[in-house]
Amino acid sequence: MGMQLRDMNPLHWLFNPRSIAVVGASDKPASIGARTLDNLLVHSRFDGDVYLVSTTKSELFGRTCWPSVRELPATPDVAMVVVPASAAIDVLEQCAERGVKFAVVLTSGFSEAGEEGARLEAQMKAIAQRSGMRIYGPNCPGLCNVNARLGMTFSPSFPHDLTPGPIGIATQGGGLGRNIMQAMERGIGVAMWSSSGNEVDLQVADFIDYMADDPGIKVIVALIEGFKDGRRFVDAVQKASRHGKPVVALKVGRSEYGERAAASHTASITGSAEVNSTVLRQLGVIEVDDIDELVDAAWLLARQMPAGKSDVAVYCGSGGAAALTADIIGQQGVTLARFDPATTRALAAKLPSYAALGNPVDTTTAVMAQPALFDATLLDVCRDPNVALVVVPVAIDYGKSTADSAEALVRVQKDSPVPIVPIWMSDRLGNGFQTYAKGGIVPAKSVGKAVKAIRRWIEHGQWRRRAQQHAAWRPWPSLGEPAPMDVPLRLSEADAKAWLAKAGIPVPRSGLARTRDEAAELAARIGFPVVAKVASADIAHKTDVGGVAIGLRDADAVRAACERIHASVRQHAPNASLQGLLIEQMAAPGGVEVLVGVSRDATFGHLMTFGLGGVYVEVFKDVARRLLPLQRHEAESMVREIRSFSLLDGARGRPKADVAALIDLLMRVSDFVGAHVQQIDEIDLNPVWVGAVGQGVLALDAVVVGREAAA
Amino acid sequence: MGMQLRDMNPLHWLFNPRSIAVVGASDKPASIGARTLDNLLVHSRFDGDVYLVSTTKSELFGRTCWPSVRELPATPDVAMVVVPASAAIDVLEQCAERGVKFAVVLTSGFSEAGEEGARLEAQMKAIAQRSGMRIYGPNCPGLCNVNARLGMTFSPSFPHDLTPGPIGIATQGGGLGRNIMQAMERGIGVAMWSSSGNEVDLQVADFIDYMADDPGIKVIVALIEGFKDGRRFVDAVQKASRHGKPVVALKVGRSEYGERAAASHTASITGSAEVNSTVLRQLGVIEVDDIDELVDAAWLLARQMPAGKSDVAVYCGSGGAAALTADIIGQQGVTLARFDPATTRALAAKLPSYAALGNPVDTTTAVMAQPALFDATLLDVCRDPNVALVVVPVAIDYGKSTADSAEALVRVQKDSPVPIVPIWMSDRLGNGFQTYAKGGIVPAKSVGKAVKAIRRWIEHGQWRRRAQQHAAWRPWPSLGEPAPMDVPLRLSEADAKAWLAKAGIPVPRSGLARTRDEAAELAARIGFPVVAKVASADIAHKTDVGGVAIGLRDADAVRAACERIHASVRQHAPNASLQGLLIEQMAAPGGVEVLVGVSRDATFGHLMTFGLGGVYVEVFKDVARRLLPLQRHEAESMVREIRSFSLLDGARGRPKADVAALIDLLMRVSDFVGAHVQQIDEIDLNPVWVGAVGQGVLALDAVVVGREAAA
Repeated sequence: MGMQLRDMNPLHWLFNPRSIAVVGASDKPASIGARTLDNLLVHSRFDGDVYLVSTTKSELFGRTCWPSVRELPATPDVAMVVVPASAAIDVLEQCAERGVKFAVVLTSGFSEAGEEGARLEAQMKAIAQRSGMRIYGPNCPGLCNVNARLGMTFSPSFPHDLTPGPIGIATQGGGLGRNIMQAMERGIGVAMWSSSGNEVDLQVADFIDYMADDPGIKVIVALIEGFKDGRRFVDAVQKASRHGKPVVALKVGRSEYGERAAASHTASITGSAEVNSTVLRQLGVIEVDDIDELVDAAWLLARQMPAGKSDVAVYCGSGGAAALTADIIGQQGVTLARFDPATTRALAAKLPSYAALGNPVDTTTAVMAQPALFDATLLDVCRDPNVALVVVPVAIDYGKSTADSAEALVRVQKDSPVPIVPIWMSDRLGNGFQTYAKGGIVPAKSVGKAVKAIRRWIEHGQWRRRAQQHAAWRPWPSLGEPAPMDVPLRLSEADAKAWLAKAGIPVPRSGLARTRDEAAELAARIGFPVVAKVASADIAHKTDVGGVAIGLRDADAVRAACERIHASVRQHAPNASLQGLLIEQMAAPGGVEVLVGVSRDATFGHLMTFGLGGVYVEVFKDVARRLLPLQRHEAESMVREIRSFSLLDGARGRPKADVAALIDLLMRVSDFVGAHVQQIDEIDLNPVWVGAVGQGVLALDAVVVGREAAA
Repeated sequence: MGMQLRDMNPLHWLFNPRSIAVVGASDKPASIGARTLDNLLVHSRFDGDVYLVSTTKSELFGRTCWPSVRELPATPDVAMVVVPASAAIDVLEQCAERGVKFAVVLTSGFSEAGEEGARLEAQMKAIAQRSGMRIYGPNCPGLCNVNARLGMTFSPSFPHDLTPGPIGIATQGGGLGRNIMQAMERGIGVAMWSSSGNEVDLQVADFIDYMADDPGIKVIVALIEGFKDGRRFVDAVQKASRHGKPVVALKVGRSEYGERAAASHTASITGSAEVNSTVLRQLGVIEVDDIDELVDAAWLLARQMPAGKSDVAVYCGSGGAAALTADIIGQQGVTLARFDPATTRALAAKLPSYAALGNPVDTTTAVMAQPALFDATLLDVCRDPNVALVVVPVAIDYGKSTADSAEALVRVQKDSPVPIVPIWMSDRLGNGFQTYAKGGIVPAKSVGKAVKAIRRWIEHGQWRRRAQQHAAWRPWPSLGEPAPMDVPLRLSEADAKAWLAKAGIPVPRSGLARTRDEAAELAARIGFPVVAKVASADIAHKTDVGGVAIGLRDADAVRAACERIHASVRQHAPNASLQGLLIEQMAAPGGVEVLVGVSRDATFGHLMTFGLGGVYVEVFKDVARRLLPLQRHEAESMVREIRSFSLLDGARGRPKADVAALIDLLMRVSDFVGAHVQQIDEIDLNPVWVGAVGQGVLALDAVVVGREAAA
């Protein structure tokens, strides 16, 4: 192995060990020890050294057994630990002493089994941290390097799932991982699968990181029940992107039921589904809704990477299937290509008059049976410069004629610059299906699922194009421990605004008045009309205590408002300590009110939320979110992606809003958080007034919440 | 056949003929004539008379051929016409003369092939109308009565798709229909399939009507490219409901692409997708999104009809699959049942301590391998009184143990009061899959698709329960021809409101003034504040010409507004003929504004649209729709089903709106349309002011558009 150490992934010797010890080797039929040995010695093609450790046997299958790891003649790269949970800690101590690089603990009975198990698992974690030996598991079926044909697993399914391929799979649980492996049945090959179980040390993110480096892998599939370490996940996914490898992920826990069930299954904290989806989307991870969609999306990406084009063609011999496919394409928001005139001319010259030459192309069944015509016209469509991908729905298994078409399609694919995606719509999986699969073009299983995979493929191409145009997103160096605020933890509105204003965030002209006359004087300096608000760090909801008066047009109005507010606040919040009255410039009429919020997610750090506030958020959940720090192009797309953007863009006869100033505000808020990243938990600017183009924006109300300083 | 004539469906002798003529019989290999004969004589079990008609042969396959229909020795119930399009009209004339009941025209080359074909098709239609002979087709593969094993079709697939069953299929096109038939491959049986092609006479609705009567059919599946006759469809579907048979439908043309492609495929007008979906939902038709979902939903309904309960259970041996399934259940808005305490106790007594006893139940894999425990605990869950259905995700095909579980599940189903729905998640279709299928429990294919089918099953149960609680919806007797309005076709706002007021629809107190003084006087009588609007049937958008003034608090303000409006209207609409000024009561502040609209769909008649107007409609499409006449319980659910209903229900500190008065308004508008059904095309009440409880509603603006009288 000529690979230089500095290039080597930290998990290299786990996936490509030179020697393996099986600790707990056994010949008891169906025992974990025996099954593990069987997979390693019989079904793998492993030419390294295998050491057997057994406390009861001196020989197994004609091989010497050693009584303990301590007494092994050499130190293996990997120790597979299949002894009972109670004996595992001692074995791991010995492994660490001997300098074993990786311990793969398949045994169950740890944190998933109760308190005693959790105690053992904590000891295991301590061994890993102390010794530097990496631990995989426990409570997992092991790992399979299919491309190297090496199974470090007790799974009796290992010998059945040995089709190599370009897809790397990283899961926590074993059941769903094996489900993905069985996609091999329809011809989809898998490079390797890690199933990291309780993740006492190594976690899904580490395997994504490894797969990003493995040259045999084109696409990484991750099934995640909970994120242990958000930063590690972000780093791994970004490495995969740099290496041109898409990550397709299914995150369990998107509904309350799923969250609860996943938590009870792996003791994972699933986190907020909205935050997780935001982060995945922003990092270019393709999030899917169901487990079969993982394979659909990964397979299409493995076949060919999207170049950033977005329009597809439909080519079909059944008018009904063509119409249905076009319909579903439209419903999913994918665009049908407008053919180049040369394509239409070429089709017209070859197809009969009653064929449909537009997009979808309906060749009619007569043509499907003529291989030469099929080849020529399908290739015409594939070569159209406006076409990113060609969908070929196959509605029925007609036997031989369907298999002939499949052969033709496989042939045309060789000359096609774009992927051809057959959809096998029938439940009958005849020879035609096998012809596609053997030709490396495994068909999708339903129109809707196929179009979903295609939409994701297109969107990922667009994400990649955007990613190439802009500097890569980089997290702030470290959240670290919370630091004391340079201002008090609980800020009054006036203090919060003053702090924000220093960071260049536009707030109304304002001042603090302690008497009616001061207020009136201040109002005159600011310019009428003004707003008066009670100023107190103790009052969170000022309107609830009658603490706000708006539209004050002269000094008398200001004085009267002072009276009213004072009386009302004294009545409704008698114990609040008052700083005085905040007198503020009133925003010009006719603007649009939006909200800008920042919150801190325990896994991924600060995220920004933007929307039109009020019913738009409460009723329609119409918001955009981004992980901070915010990049300018992301700020732009945040503003434009809300459904109610039209209200900022001149709908219903309004003037166009000052979107440039709004984007600037979002950037400044992000920078402000970055400058105080260890101190700020939450910011709520609601409402922010957005004027017409040229009028700018104003944060009319502001709440800043600091982090509790670490003890 | 002891069936009495008055009970007999008009299509009875088409599906159960006593005699069939094949016109265009042939022995030329692969010809339509030969394939039709082969299906009828070799692959069907037809014991009636078969007559062969051939212009060139006197004998075929040892049977006499007759030179023409005219010369047949007896009149067949059905004539299958497989002669070329050019010869078809003459054959049909002869069939009509002879009193043939049904002509099944398989030949292509009619309206789908161009002008000459369309001309022939028009002649065909005329023959059917003149003679009363019903025509099926043309341009279709024929029909299959699978339960009777009778194939009146040229399709070479007929001999392969002969699994009888409880599902009736009615499609237009042949390709997608055959696709549904191939669900037989996974064990789903089909009673019969009609594929009505160009529908010159018989159409999908007629087959739904027939299947509603056929005792061998439990569920009807319809694939619709366009509705030819809306009323006929409504009648057929309502008959199916009366007979307790659900109709599951896929309507192609829900996106613009689909609409265009379906139109070019069958020359159908697909209609508005929103209107179609409204009608289907209101009639209890289960609309699906993809062709495989037709079978998923139909099969579940055929297995067992939903009783109206809504909560499901998940039972699984894999924690990961249980969590994923629960997650997708939550995302789709289905509810997990809360187990009865007795169920939890029973499970706790039988399952090991580390199993999850809640819902989802995770038995862990150990238990899945113990048949007795599996049987007992699954049955405990099935018998829980809160459970409507039990989902059993099967993540992996493990071979024998998976097949054993399948056998156990089939066993438990026999004693279970509710359906058990296994989900076969793997691409490997081993013996376990076959065990389920043979046991009559064909598994669903993906978690998402299974949950979608289950959601539809539950919703249909709820629809049935509602339908049982209320009188059946009945369309207005007939739209008939448009009749002249009893008022002018173009109504001014004042006239429209006066007309609506007579029907009990609340409008503001108002009057028409022709001078400033009249206006001031009128305003005083009405009570200040008032609104003044220009009254003219020529001005559609009053605000655009400065024709509206609101909040007029005294006589002077009214006089000044009259001046302003007059000047502005004269400037912006110099040619409009003016009736004067409409002076109106102004709605009390603080209400909510909604819109109530009625439009007339060419296929289904009048529909009502309700929503909060403005951005709620324009940006969020947040509206509810119903086919008229409106039933009171539908009016209630209309108001409650919009996403922004919370704004009528006291959200954001508002008083609760007068929903009772609003529902009353919707009913009165519906009655108003019913009373003038031949005259009214469109009504637009926008805005309608809705006050707080007890304050009522007011139609603040009203547009009524009459139908053009027929010439």
